[in-house]
Amino acid sequence: MAEKSVNEMTAVEMVNAIGAGETNCEEIVRANLAAIEAREGDVQAWVHVDAENAIASAKAMDEAGPKGPLFGLPVGFKDVIDTADMPTEYGSDIYPGYRPDVDAACVALVKEAGGIVFGKAVTTEFAFVNPNKTRNPHNLAHTPGGSSSGSAAAVAANMVPLAFGTQTGGSVIRPASFCGVVGYKPSIGQFSYAGVKLLARSLDTLGAFARGAADLALLRAALLGASADVQARSTPPRIAFCETPWWERADASSQSSVKGAADRIANAGGAVETLALPAHFAALEQANFTIMVYEGRRSLAHEFMRHEDLLSEKLKGLMATGLDISFSEYRQAIDLADQCRLEFAALTESYDAVLVPSAVGEAPEGFDTTGDALFNRPWTTIGIPCITLPNTTGRNGLPVGIQLISGYGTDENLISVADWAEGALRS
Amino acid sequence: MAEKSVNEMTAVEMVNAIGAGETNCEEIVRANLAAIEAREGDVQAWVHVDAENAIASAKAMDEAGPKGPLFGLPVGFKDVIDTADMPTEYGSDIYPGYRPDVDAACVALVKEAGGIVFGKAVTTEFAFVNPNKTRNPHNLAHTPGGSSSGSAAAVAANMVPLAFGTQTGGSVIRPASFCGVVGYKPSIGQFSYAGVKLLARSLDTLGAFARGAADLALLRAALLGASADVQARSTPPRIAFCETPWWERADASSQSSVKGAADRIANAGGAVETLALPAHFAALEQANFTIMVYEGRRSLAHEFMRHEDLLSEKLKGLMATGLDISFSEYRQAIDLADQCRLEFAALTESYDAVLVPSAVGEAPEGFDTTGDALFNRPWTTIGIPCITLPNTTGRNGLPVGIQLISGYGTDENLISVADWAEGALRS
Repeated sequence: MAEKSVNEMTAVEMVNAIGAGETNCEEIVRANLAAIEAREGDVQAWVHVDAENAIASAKAMDEAGPKGPLFGLPVGFKDVIDTADMPTEYGSDIYPGYRPDVDAACVALVKEAGGIVFGKAVTTEFAFVNPNKTRNPHNLAHTPGGSSSGSAAAVAANMVPLAFGTQTGGSVIRPASFCGVVGYKPSIGQFSYAGVKLLARSLDTLGAFARGAADLALLRAALLGASADVQARSTPPRIAFCETPWWERADASSQSSVKGAADRIANAGGAVETLALPAHFAALEQANFTIMVYEGRRSLAHEFMRHEDLLSEKLKGLMATGLDISFSEYRQAIDLADQCRLEFAALTESYDAVLVPSAVGEAPEGFDTTGDALFNRPWTTIGIPCITLPNTTGRNGLPVGIQLISGYGTDENLISVADWAEGALRS
Repeated sequence: MAEKSVNEMTAVEMVNAIGAGETNCEEIVRANLAAIEAREGDVQAWVHVDAENAIASAKAMDEAGPKGPLFGLPVGFKDVIDTADMPTEYGSDIYPGYRPDVDAACVALVKEAGGIVFGKAVTTEFAFVNPNKTRNPHNLAHTPGGSSSGSAAAVAANMVPLAFGTQTGGSVIRPASFCGVVGYKPSIGQFSYAGVKLLARSLDTLGAFARGAADLALLRAALLGASADVQARSTPPRIAFCETPWWERADASSQSSVKGAADRIANAGGAVETLALPAHFAALEQANFTIMVYEGRRSLAHEFMRHEDLLSEKLKGLMATGLDISFSEYRQAIDLADQCRLEFAALTESYDAVLVPSAVGEAPEGFDTTGDALFNRPWTTIGIPCITLPNTTGRNGLPVGIQLISGYGTDENLISVADWAEGALRS
């Protein structure tokens, strides 16, 4: 196997290579920019890339020397994340060239941690359902998934090692699975949402894309002051294999990806048991949609009031229903979420993680939809951490992932499980 | 007793008076503007008032006829709430004259509901602790409380019937108590935070000031599509009198206000029992501060990175400690909050509300501090709804309120209790 080029490395590999003097910030930046140069015409992952600033920053950093856990790493930001030095258009015709005065907290914290703000990645309109221009790097005729389409595709196409996205339904885990990269939706509230366009506070979660599970610890160090190292494991993890209430809606490729992963994990020494969830968890799919449009229509009240003509028909059609949902119907959805969050924690207490599908299957062909968020909505709704890892390919040769999830607030252990599972899946 | 002038009415009284043809939108707007004209030089509640637009809107509304639950009502907005047509300065020297492109959701929803955006009310710097210029309308030598200083004072001085504020520690309930008005901190997440400057997501709650508990239902109709009428009661409420773990830190005026209210409620037919909270609730005070500065320092990462010289010493000193708090210390505070929220719900299940102090006492003299948020921090931290009602006065003749609180999500019943209690306190 040929040696990896510098832009194909994981973030941890880049950090180590810089530390060992095998490369430097400028070389990394230039390699990533070259990948953009080579493939952006096809993939269309970006709304804006500031190459000049990235090179200048990298040179200055090589001069000044090591600083922070993300030192020298190019980072992409979904274009619902405010940037003071780059346009922020929210994937909407209302905001061409809009430039906020303030960097979102994650942007400023990445800078403080030595990361290089590379550019703004394509989002669907307000991170909702209307597809945008990005294509799947593995097959340009297929969707990359959404709404964090550009962030997923950019990491998959080796244009950046790390990118931020947001998940309100399934907007991080699904595109990561479709694009064959690692996706991480933290416990809700952990990564600061300051300066990110709000859609539905009860669901909106800032997350990230990477090429290795250990990279996620670097991001947690930058954003949370948590450890930059993956938590050590003294024993292999205890994993619950869970078909979930929606198993029949996963296609053969997704079902066999999860089953195969369970076998590999068991072969590598993991304890694998079977878990069934209570039947009322099935209602979390609809609860996610109810909460999203009830809160979303209100979050976008300004845009509906002043610029309705510039909203897509798709967004208007779905969001308008948000005003038809009664407050008590909305509250029932919130109550179900609160109940299931607690039940999930109790049911999974004796496991390190639960293994479930990342998506219903491969990325669908065409661009009418960004795919079904079924296997993400329930977990977003109960606010628990989720990580998707690339695993197999489906009958179209596109990536199919597996998803590891765990109780609210157990992110550090989940990352450690994912890091361990990467090895097990390869073996 | 002289008849109330139109700007002294509650919001519900204004709505009814408009409906009955006894007044109209323009008369209400002009009466409120006259109060500003008369007292703003002393009280200094406002950063910006758009009198011309308010009069023009009122005239247009009188012409067009009834629309929405807030039809014709002037509404003030704390200046951490984004407005596209008015400056938004966050109480900070970093943002003189800053004008966002987007109205916050609450601003747009108030407009959709027929309300008139009157102006931006003074906030402390980023809704944190550094006092601003507003004075207490009841005694200009005393603080109005904070951080929603202007919103509380404006409602107290009959300059607007309704104003929005935010509470992260005790920034709605405390100033409402100090200024002798009704204050409402909803269950966290109910009023959309879209377009409001984020300080600490786990705590930040959009709330409101009014002159009557029934007015709060109007706001819930505008923001949530909930009923504009107070929920009917078939029987007097069951109230738990609770000294809380901090009783000894309430002064004589606050203690006797709460005790007196318990007596009046019992006399009016309410069932009053005594409730003790578990000892570990005492740690919620510190947990609130831990979460606030841990999350707050990160929310303000941009401001710390680019404009540290324009931040007050007070903010810098307290917020800087946010980076010294370890992630696990922060997580312990979050876990305590989650635990106490559930315990509180279980402990209070058989009551309609719990009666506690609104503040340690009257508004302190001077402007070095906005007062102690002790009796608010714990409830903000567990995300439950809180309403303060004006009740008595202290030895300086300044208002002293009482606070009613209840389990997460029970806001509609709590408003009904508060509406009933207003009658009981008067009897």
